[in-house]
Amino acid sequence: MNLSAEIALAHRLADAARAEILPHFRTQVDSEAKDDATPVSVADRAAEEAMRRILKAEVPQDGVFGEEFGVEEGTSRRQWVLDPIDGTTAFLAGRPIFATLIALLVDGFPVLGMIDQPVNKERWLGVMGEGTTFNGKPVTTRHCRELSAATIATTGPQYFSQDEGDVFMALASQTDHKRMVMGGDCYNYACLASGHIDIVCEAGLKLYDFAALVPVVEGAGGTMSDWNGEPLHAGSDGRVLALGDPARLEDVLEAMGGGGHSHDH
Amino acid sequence: MNLSAEIALAHRLADAARAEILPHFRTQVDSEAKDDATPVSVADRAAEEAMRRILKAEVPQDGVFGEEFGVEEGTSRRQWVLDPIDGTTAFLAGRPIFATLIALLVDGFPVLGMIDQPVNKERWLGVMGEGTTFNGKPVTTRHCRELSAATIATTGPQYFSQDEGDVFMALASQTDHKRMVMGGDCYNYACLASGHIDIVCEAGLKLYDFAALVPVVEGAGGTMSDWNGEPLHAGSDGRVLALGDPARLEDVLEAMGGGGHSHDH
Repeated sequence: MNLSAEIALAHRLADAARAEILPHFRTQVDSEAKDDATPVSVADRAAEEAMRRILKAEVPQDGVFGEEFGVEEGTSRRQWVLDPIDGTTAFLAGRPIFATLIALLVDGFPVLGMIDQPVNKERWLGVMGEGTTFNGKPVTTRHCRELSAATIATTGPQYFSQDEGDVFMALASQTDHKRMVMGGDCYNYACLASGHIDIVCEAGLKLYDFAALVPVVEGAGGTMSDWNGEPLHAGSDGRVLALGDPARLEDVLEAMGGGGHSHDH
Repeated sequence: MNLSAEIALAHRLADAARAEILPHFRTQVDSEAKDDATPVSVADRAAEEAMRRILKAEVPQDGVFGEEFGVEEGTSRRQWVLDPIDGTTAFLAGRPIFATLIALLVDGFPVLGMIDQPVNKERWLGVMGEGTTFNGKPVTTRHCRELSAATIATTGPQYFSQDEGDVFMALASQTDHKRMVMGGDCYNYACLASGHIDIVCEAGLKLYDFAALVPVVEGAGGTMSDWNGEPLHAGSDGRVLALGDPARLEDVLEAMGGGGHSHDH
């Protein structure tokens, strides 16, 4: 599959999102602002609209699914999945580690993913069969010879149910937990792709939260799956695992008690 | 107290630390690297040594207390307190939200504080009686009319004892917890000073972790204290509270059950 046109298009989408997002970062906001009136909501909507305009003009046959404006059906096997600002709480808190996520799915499976951090002008691009780049230069995940040496990341315990939290803790307790990092949203997967984190384990993610991450992580040599070790796709349950070293997948699933019980619901 | 010479000196210290730290950020490291052989340890030591050289040459009469090389007594009432890299796990994970912390204490109380993020070239400077600046421009905390509208931040639940975690959760549950952010280390206090976070609540901090934060937060209009609402100083117990709006201090202490039991140990 030659995706050079789609890669160029993804860059233009991310450029357009950057231009909409940057003016709203660290604009002071009253702590009581309603969620639909915060700078992040305004930037979120403006960035998704800008990307949708480009997609409508250039690939009207492709479907679009965005966090803010939902699904627009296409007539091709392709769907663009957009999260204009992943890490809205980080954005509101003034942290430059949120990002714009852009994915291209074919038949429901992600084949191209982009993680773009507007403030620091950092862009990770993963393309199936072509590897992952960070600002144009190839990046790879790192080896992890054993679970006890692994650095694990997750955005926060508040995003797990009680059961999910127990599964996460069972896994985290077998890693090098003094290096565990909290917060980070999609940025954790980007840092994993660049070889600085070994495991990210999360739950409750939507398709637009994880679709772009898969080609970035896998193109860098890592693996992503649900909590049963199954490939992620449009119908996945939102329990997500990313590993820098695919050789650790079995250890991780075992530490999680055999797959995180995702069949329970 | 005219601190213009000390302010200029603090800038030179931070510049020197930046130069030592930047070459080590995102240098790939084996996940099994021993703690004393990681890029962050190397950068940490080099940055503290560079700052100590400057202090020894320029203010030999002042004491120095640094995270890496401990206490060097001085003959004046002044002590420079240095944490070359606060947020070592964030540094190792590739996140550009760690910082160099530089504080000047007089008789054990912080009167000047600097939070310097080398990658993004972000520098917060707080000086008693002079206000706080971010890259040279004044910043202020934001108002917070009620606790339920507050954004709270903490680096991670793993840094609390069981009891401390309970106190934190009692407080967090009364804030706008869907906007709660985890991770961040000293960067949370910088974002609070700039008006993007309302409360930071942490435990287990050392003097070099919190001394620089006090003038930054208080110069921006906020307040810092221990969990009993008492001013922070060289002998504080490491349970730290920062509020953007000092008018919320009573509500916060009440939500924490009357002061977090810091007399227990």
